[in-house]
Amino acid sequence: MRADIDSLLGERGIEAAVVVKTETPNPTFTYLTGPGCHLTVGLIVWRRDRGGHLVHSKMERDGAAATGFELSDFSRWSYRKILEEEPTPVAGYARFLDEVTRELGVTGRILVEGTGPLGQFHHILRRLVERRPDLEIVEDRDPSLFLQARLSKDESEVAEVRKVGAVCTRAYARVREVIGAGRLEGKKLRDAEGYVTIGRLRREIRRIFFEAGLLEPEGNVVAMGRDAGVPHNVGNDDDVLLEGAPIVIDLFPAQAGGGYYFDVTRTYCVGRATDELRELHRCVQDSLQDALDAFEPGARCRSYQDRVCEFFEKRGHRTTRQDDSLQEGYIHGLGHGIGLEVHERPLLGGPTTNPDRLEPGSLFTVEPGLYYPSRGLGVRLEDIVYARPDGTFENLTTIPYDLEVAPAS
Amino acid sequence: MRADIDSLLGERGIEAAVVVKTETPNPTFTYLTGPGCHLTVGLIVWRRDRGGHLVHSKMERDGAAATGFELSDFSRWSYRKILEEEPTPVAGYARFLDEVTRELGVTGRILVEGTGPLGQFHHILRRLVERRPDLEIVEDRDPSLFLQARLSKDESEVAEVRKVGAVCTRAYARVREVIGAGRLEGKKLRDAEGYVTIGRLRREIRRIFFEAGLLEPEGNVVAMGRDAGVPHNVGNDDDVLLEGAPIVIDLFPAQAGGGYYFDVTRTYCVGRATDELRELHRCVQDSLQDALDAFEPGARCRSYQDRVCEFFEKRGHRTTRQDDSLQEGYIHGLGHGIGLEVHERPLLGGPTTNPDRLEPGSLFTVEPGLYYPSRGLGVRLEDIVYARPDGTFENLTTIPYDLEVAPAS
Repeated sequence: MRADIDSLLGERGIEAAVVVKTETPNPTFTYLTGPGCHLTVGLIVWRRDRGGHLVHSKMERDGAAATGFELSDFSRWSYRKILEEEPTPVAGYARFLDEVTRELGVTGRILVEGTGPLGQFHHILRRLVERRPDLEIVEDRDPSLFLQARLSKDESEVAEVRKVGAVCTRAYARVREVIGAGRLEGKKLRDAEGYVTIGRLRREIRRIFFEAGLLEPEGNVVAMGRDAGVPHNVGNDDDVLLEGAPIVIDLFPAQAGGGYYFDVTRTYCVGRATDELRELHRCVQDSLQDALDAFEPGARCRSYQDRVCEFFEKRGHRTTRQDDSLQEGYIHGLGHGIGLEVHERPLLGGPTTNPDRLEPGSLFTVEPGLYYPSRGLGVRLEDIVYARPDGTFENLTTIPYDLEVAPAS
Repeated sequence: MRADIDSLLGERGIEAAVVVKTETPNPTFTYLTGPGCHLTVGLIVWRRDRGGHLVHSKMERDGAAATGFELSDFSRWSYRKILEEEPTPVAGYARFLDEVTRELGVTGRILVEGTGPLGQFHHILRRLVERRPDLEIVEDRDPSLFLQARLSKDESEVAEVRKVGAVCTRAYARVREVIGAGRLEGKKLRDAEGYVTIGRLRREIRRIFFEAGLLEPEGNVVAMGRDAGVPHNVGNDDDVLLEGAPIVIDLFPAQAGGGYYFDVTRTYCVGRATDELRELHRCVQDSLQDALDAFEPGARCRSYQDRVCEFFEKRGHRTTRQDDSLQEGYIHGLGHGIGLEVHERPLLGGPTTNPDRLEPGSLFTVEPGLYYPSRGLGVRLEDIVYARPDGTFENLTTIPYDLEVAPAS
């Protein structure tokens, strides 16, 4: 939690965190300023036990004032003059960081956070330590300090995630409504608007999110048949919905302005599923339930990946545990934390050395799937689980798992 | 242009560019793969005159295949095993970069590009050069190689920008339509839905963009009165539109899926403007026209900032040229390049040492403004100009400048 930042800095022996905001989206900066605060560029110097100082553009002085930080604008540091005096912008930004941290009394071990151009900042930071032998830019441990702080959500964060989840529930209901109102022409689904396509479903989903003020910054997955068998294939808008084919619908919208995400997957099919698809779906649903029933506070997250692999292997499916280059069977990790980014900590898959545990306050997806693109098949189901401070686990997802959706005729 | 990358590498004496895709949006990576290509993570190794190699997730093998690059997936490099063998993810990624570049025959001076966590990659790159004394990570000149390549747009890119511009034209028309249909109740505007607020205008704009498949990844500015006088104040949704107050509307939507931006500003007022506002608006419009008439191919971009400062100073306004900490008058730069990011090169403001010139193919905004928040006033007008390869300049913006919008009664 945000309140843990000073103690985490203390534990790691770090004097200050320098959080750089370039024009690139920056969830940690948003975490510190609060979502809904629009700062294009800036710099937060967070000194342990002494609070944050925000350097901002004077054009954004109103947004900066809303953060509650100690403030200064770039002109206070003669930033433009620095850029004119130094030979390159890289040298200029290094001097700017030097002067700001020096005047704010920062010395010793510091953390540099933020997102932006990697090569350029490598040289900025290299030049900064050349200028300042008293500064050491710490190579942080894993998970990094801010990912660790962000890992435990407080009630107000979970409340935001629930709101986004409620809109997702409506989106899936709308998809079932559209399919349910269609009629089959041979194996193809159509309704008053014509053939019902993947693109049509995506538009219906997008409209529900739009009405609720949500964005889909990373798009979504609405993929049928063979495409459903390749986990990140986003699907083909021109495909007409076909009776009996699996449709994987993976939605991960976020609140506009850098807010919270939800992430959920269901697999549907128009009309009757083949026995093979029904069995796959049953197997994935059982594996999800098996994992949900097994969560224990403090347990190693990676153990659940092994558990699901074992579950699938016993039922005749191959898994990446057996062969990392596998393209059919169970071929990805079991889940990931979610919050201001769609992928945060903890990680429920990853390498066997993944250190994450099911800590109180964590919020994460559970998403087993089975993929057989060569047979036109893919099934994934994904819920979001909240590890409550009282040691229980709450499934935040309230969308039925049902596979088949009967058309009107 | 994309076709210039090899010759730019040659000019700068660089053997290869390593472009890292983390989960952070990455316009240069999108530039190389083409917009609409959904790759969550990956790595492009672009060897001079030998083309690109893309390392991708096997879950995204369909998207990867669409790029036309030489391909391998992470498991080909035993990435998971590397993470298990190395003490930290930072050490693991450094070894992965080492092994990929080594096997692809990359040595000598390399460029590292991409966006992501700055502190973490500083240590990854530090460890990479420790492992590989034969590699030198070049401190690129300014503008960086890929910003230089992206600076000259080809016809297909300009065509995409025009499409986004056409939707903006509809959005401003809709705003004028809503105001024009309202009636004044005292100084407040209302219509059948109630008082017309800033939030209402924002929703109308958002709906136009939604219908056209555009996103507003960075939001927009719809700010009235005193808020219009602080350039990046996004405006207050609860404000009711008041007769005679300036409303700055700055829109910068983009195509969904990492496509092209437009960026345009108009300042409107409900009913009759005060003489003071009308004069300010006239002065800003004249300064814009003066700049548009003065553009010459190859001219220094920064000279137009000086020109506009002079224009305003002659008419009694203060400018940041006189005082960098200024908060009233003309307080920002004249413009910026636009493309896959809302702010690209060339820069028409910035430090006096800004080296940018009006090169053929560049696409940039021109946006003078005058700000007097203490008097409840702010005016900005912004057009997008294309420096055509034939040496002429084309204004891509077709939205009238008119300030006043008369309500129905």
